[in-house]
Amino acid sequence: MSSCYALIMAGGGGTRLWPLSRRSRPKQALTLVGERTMFEHAVDRIASLFQPEEIFVVTGEEHLETLLFQAPELPRQNFLLEPVGQGTAPAIGLGAVHLRRRDPQAVMVVLTADHFIRDVETFRRALAAAAEVAEKGHLVTLGITPSFPSTGFGYIQQGEQLYEVDGFAVFRALRFTEKPTAETAFRMVESGLYTWNSGMFIWRVDRILEEFARQMPDLYDVLMQIDAVLDTPAYEPTLRRLWPELSPQSIDYGVMEGAQDVVVIPVDIGWSDVGNWSSMREILPADADGNVVVGEHVGIETRNSIIFGGRRLIATIGLEDMIIVDTDDALLICPLEREQDVREMVQRLRVMGKNGVL
Amino acid sequence: MSSCYALIMAGGGGTRLWPLSRRSRPKQALTLVGERTMFEHAVDRIASLFQPEEIFVVTGEEHLETLLFQAPELPRQNFLLEPVGQGTAPAIGLGAVHLRRRDPQAVMVVLTADHFIRDVETFRRALAAAAEVAEKGHLVTLGITPSFPSTGFGYIQQGEQLYEVDGFAVFRALRFTEKPTAETAFRMVESGLYTWNSGMFIWRVDRILEEFARQMPDLYDVLMQIDAVLDTPAYEPTLRRLWPELSPQSIDYGVMEGAQDVVVIPVDIGWSDVGNWSSMREILPADADGNVVVGEHVGIETRNSIIFGGRRLIATIGLEDMIIVDTDDALLICPLEREQDVREMVQRLRVMGKNGVL
Repeated sequence: MSSCYALIMAGGGGTRLWPLSRRSRPKQALTLVGERTMFEHAVDRIASLFQPEEIFVVTGEEHLETLLFQAPELPRQNFLLEPVGQGTAPAIGLGAVHLRRRDPQAVMVVLTADHFIRDVETFRRALAAAAEVAEKGHLVTLGITPSFPSTGFGYIQQGEQLYEVDGFAVFRALRFTEKPTAETAFRMVESGLYTWNSGMFIWRVDRILEEFARQMPDLYDVLMQIDAVLDTPAYEPTLRRLWPELSPQSIDYGVMEGAQDVVVIPVDIGWSDVGNWSSMREILPADADGNVVVGEHVGIETRNSIIFGGRRLIATIGLEDMIIVDTDDALLICPLEREQDVREMVQRLRVMGKNGVL
Repeated sequence: MSSCYALIMAGGGGTRLWPLSRRSRPKQALTLVGERTMFEHAVDRIASLFQPEEIFVVTGEEHLETLLFQAPELPRQNFLLEPVGQGTAPAIGLGAVHLRRRDPQAVMVVLTADHFIRDVETFRRALAAAAEVAEKGHLVTLGITPSFPSTGFGYIQQGEQLYEVDGFAVFRALRFTEKPTAETAFRMVESGLYTWNSGMFIWRVDRILEEFARQMPDLYDVLMQIDAVLDTPAYEPTLRRLWPELSPQSIDYGVMEGAQDVVVIPVDIGWSDVGNWSSMREILPADADGNVVVGEHVGIETRNSIIFGGRRLIATIGLEDMIIVDTDDALLICPLEREQDVREMVQRLRVMGKNGVL
């Protein structure tokens, strides 16, 4: 059996969780659920599957110390630092180059640090099954059994079943689709033939690099130039020179939609995207009034709101479906239905030069 | 001409301005308008009319140091300290007893520390005119020319005109009425014969004590017991013993409604009650979106709201007619139309034992 490595992608800035998330304190470094940060949860989840030396992290240079502080058991050299974030395809490519040096046929488990998974036991079993399938050369993706017709995720259409491994059915993946309309989402979920694209992939490094070579030759070329200077003093200058010139690209759009031999393993693991404030309502328990509260809150007729404080008492009267996020230097108040505008707020603050709170 | 003294009533707690106002930091001690506190404004307004020794203050024992710090020019013994607040009638009675000792026919100008007055020059001229009328023995009240049919104030009905003093018409006051219904308020304002009860009174101490003797004999009896020990070591123990046994009573209900020889001087002085958050919209200038903002605020589609911060950036999206008050240890968020429930919130916090934020 070939060796197996995890690659945790911990790069994003997460402006949608502002003012909790900041440039210097990205989403992954936040304590959103329980006492541990999202990144700590991501490492904890796979701690029984991988040795610390087998866990790699792709992140921005500026986040290294924060993440290393949270997972001091990981070797410092396992943090692969992007000079600038360019989307998931380059990040995964960089990981693949590093892992190939260790084992040309290594199985690589691509995970993210901004998801919440309730059923960790099933998740681990699914990863083990996926690694077994990946060894055969398939590009494996975990598809999340949809719990509702979400228009916020991409969907994977499954075809014929190819295997069953440890109770997990493995299907040929027919098609990756972008975020659908409500009607399409409803039909897809009803058909039972679609799962959510979780962004978790399991494959051999030689296979994914093959796909890069075929579908993203420019990126592949850059990756090979980096490969040539790996473990030499030229590595960092080369990365610094080449990385900013890449075009940002997601692995879904850049590779998966056109990849050959993709399979999907549907899993029901209590998965939630922690992409925005309303997702917190799915993850955290609500009180009797439907409020998700962190910190001290006293409400009079306050319902179905997200109240993220902790630093001072938050008193609310007559609020419904509201987001309140209170931090040391910035306070956000916004109706849940306007939450997509949090990005615009961050943009506006950037333009205003309010860097202290970004 | 008899001597003239000011008595500033600075007792109230002001729970309606929570979380800005606290037990230890009552409304009068707050910086709501400009750089000075409400109490400082109250003293400043009359500084050109009275010597510091002529300005008295009735307040709670617990507020002495705060207020003395804000008006160090006032003699410490001019702060008349109530062991417990019992409404305006006892507070004014206590003041009257003290002032009578200085001059049995002293004119006493009763002022409050929780109002805002825009046209201070006219206010001062009105006080001088009122003092002149009070010397004759009338109980004078300043009536505020109504700017809208408010249901939040008491009204004074004026009868025949008795004098004109320095351009101010002086009318016999026919009746004091409690807060009216909207319909009644509309009719009263339309008639042109009613003014708002400002709570500012000007009278001779012998005259008001006469009214106490006639209309509030129990209070008068207590006042005379205190009078008997004035300037002796028995004063404080006597006050402490008698004061808590009084029944709380307002001067309006206890005296003015049944008083003889009351006159009203209508004044148009840009007067505002600073009783609650929405009153701040009348007093403070609004920005282009109709928001009254103290501190740093960035809003996306936020309108007609009161945003009282200062300690951190407040970012709001899609809010309208909202009150946001941010302090070091407590944050209040409440629609303007629910502002009467701020009292209930304070009650609830009291029951919960959250004394740290009260």
